[in-house]
Amino acid sequence: MRPLLSWAGRRAVLARTYSPGPSAGYRGASGAQGYVRNPPVGTCDLQGELDRFGGISVRLARLDALDRLDAAAFQKGLQAAVQQWRSEGRTAVWLHIPILQSRFIAPAASLGFCFHHAESDSSTLTLWLGEGPSRLPGYASHQVGVAGAVFDESTRKILVVQDRNKLENMWKFPGGLSEPGEDIGDTAVREVFEETGIKSEFRSLLSIRQQHTNPGAFGKSDMYIICRLKPYSFTINFCQHECLRCEWMDLNDLAKTENTTPITSRVARLLLYGYREGFDKIDLAVEELPAVHTGLFYKLYHKELPDNYKTMKGID
Amino acid sequence: MRPLLSWAGRRAVLARTYSPGPSAGYRGASGAQGYVRNPPVGTCDLQGELDRFGGISVRLARLDALDRLDAAAFQKGLQAAVQQWRSEGRTAVWLHIPILQSRFIAPAASLGFCFHHAESDSSTLTLWLGEGPSRLPGYASHQVGVAGAVFDESTRKILVVQDRNKLENMWKFPGGLSEPGEDIGDTAVREVFEETGIKSEFRSLLSIRQQHTNPGAFGKSDMYIICRLKPYSFTINFCQHECLRCEWMDLNDLAKTENTTPITSRVARLLLYGYREGFDKIDLAVEELPAVHTGLFYKLYHKELPDNYKTMKGID
Repeated sequence: MRPLLSWAGRRAVLARTYSPGPSAGYRGASGAQGYVRNPPVGTCDLQGELDRFGGISVRLARLDALDRLDAAAFQKGLQAAVQQWRSEGRTAVWLHIPILQSRFIAPAASLGFCFHHAESDSSTLTLWLGEGPSRLPGYASHQVGVAGAVFDESTRKILVVQDRNKLENMWKFPGGLSEPGEDIGDTAVREVFEETGIKSEFRSLLSIRQQHTNPGAFGKSDMYIICRLKPYSFTINFCQHECLRCEWMDLNDLAKTENTTPITSRVARLLLYGYREGFDKIDLAVEELPAVHTGLFYKLYHKELPDNYKTMKGID
Repeated sequence: MRPLLSWAGRRAVLARTYSPGPSAGYRGASGAQGYVRNPPVGTCDLQGELDRFGGISVRLARLDALDRLDAAAFQKGLQAAVQQWRSEGRTAVWLHIPILQSRFIAPAASLGFCFHHAESDSSTLTLWLGEGPSRLPGYASHQVGVAGAVFDESTRKILVVQDRNKLENMWKFPGGLSEPGEDIGDTAVREVFEETGIKSEFRSLLSIRQQHTNPGAFGKSDMYIICRLKPYSFTINFCQHECLRCEWMDLNDLAKTENTTPITSRVARLLLYGYREGFDKIDLAVEELPAVHTGLFYKLYHKELPDNYKTMKGID
């Protein structure tokens, strides 16, 4: 069982002012913050920043005379610096490299560094110096897709589409991948509008699916979330690029048809149950709460909780 | 509103045999699969693989004489190839580069390529050739953390910890980040055992939190999921590295204490409601279902659905 950053450890880091370097803590590590300048080696003088977990973070963009530095001199300097950091008992090295300076990646890799992640115009490499296997936190592990089950209670009709690119024409709910920083409900409303032209508003979260080693997620896992939406426009104007068909279908028909995916069928039956027995039986309500310490807010989803339990007034 | 790979489009790709190159479709794009060998330019002969969306995928590891290829010759060859692919109406180029060949990254970046992602020993760069802004699918956007609310109905006690690294000593549920490919419930059980020594089994999913621009997630979003677990061992042996304290606490006390986080307090009250009114009021049940086409299985979570609705037997 590979040791992993614990949520507890991670929250502990979030609980403090964020400092550059490893963006999350690693189990059992500790150290004071500060700057470490090791003696010049050849033409390369690496300045690292010490994080609270005893790791060193080096930002190449901050190095002097970076453009004149060749890969061999960098490798020599990095090798010496790593030796020193190891002797000082540092736990890890984080190397942040601008994409146009990527000639320094292979030399670092030859010293044992590997990619932690890369995005847009920079990459981050890591080298674990601590005991045992690396305890550094991983990068994002899931893609998040959201579908909108747009249900019109007054007509018992549900909005369904058939994909243009699919081999078989199966009815399903419109949906798509979350954009960076986008809330679940906002993704559902946006994707429904982009695909079908229907305007809607978030009502509840109905179901979550987790799937791994997903080719459509570049080998990562994906989380697929289905929301209940209420329509406030009804004229379909669907995206010809994506959809072959788009209809308002009777919920009973969708719950019974074989011309759909297992997850769509299941959610249709869940909706039928909620429609007949009360949506409180199937809905997860959403609430925005303040995050501790960080000044951020987050959305929390769970079954509706009676007010007296929320406040604990009169509960003993 | 930046166009994004639609879920529909993405599912369409998952519905087919996966081919290398872009791991997911992009909206409105189409093309036949095959191989594209463009005429040698200098010493660099780039062979690209055409994907179904009209994108070209080049795997440097497959190039001949890669070690003897210098960065300048590669850039010249890539520039000519991109010109040709553009003239052929290709939508995008995907460049897969082994970490030890990273000297080719900067030359590609100077032609407009940027990092899509990188992990371990390779990176993937992309260049959008289609009209308008890029419609290429993004990489994983969320970290997933799971906490276990281990509740012993027979004693009304709940398992809580205090983090060692925290400034304030707040009671919370043990938990941590999911390992790659790990199911939500398995993460909860593993983290509870690693932090507290308590053995437990998954009962239900209780709550989901989504938070963005999270420093603890390298600027990505995070999904934090709280599960209800049933203990089958009771002797605490907590991890000294991570925890300052670990206790079996009366659920009422946790629901009322101020010495906890808002989310822990909320879930404690949700549990109290479930304990008194029935856990069916708060639980999301889990079921494993077969994925369509891909041969994968997935876990689906939603409120318990009566069997007659699951089967639609006697429902009209």
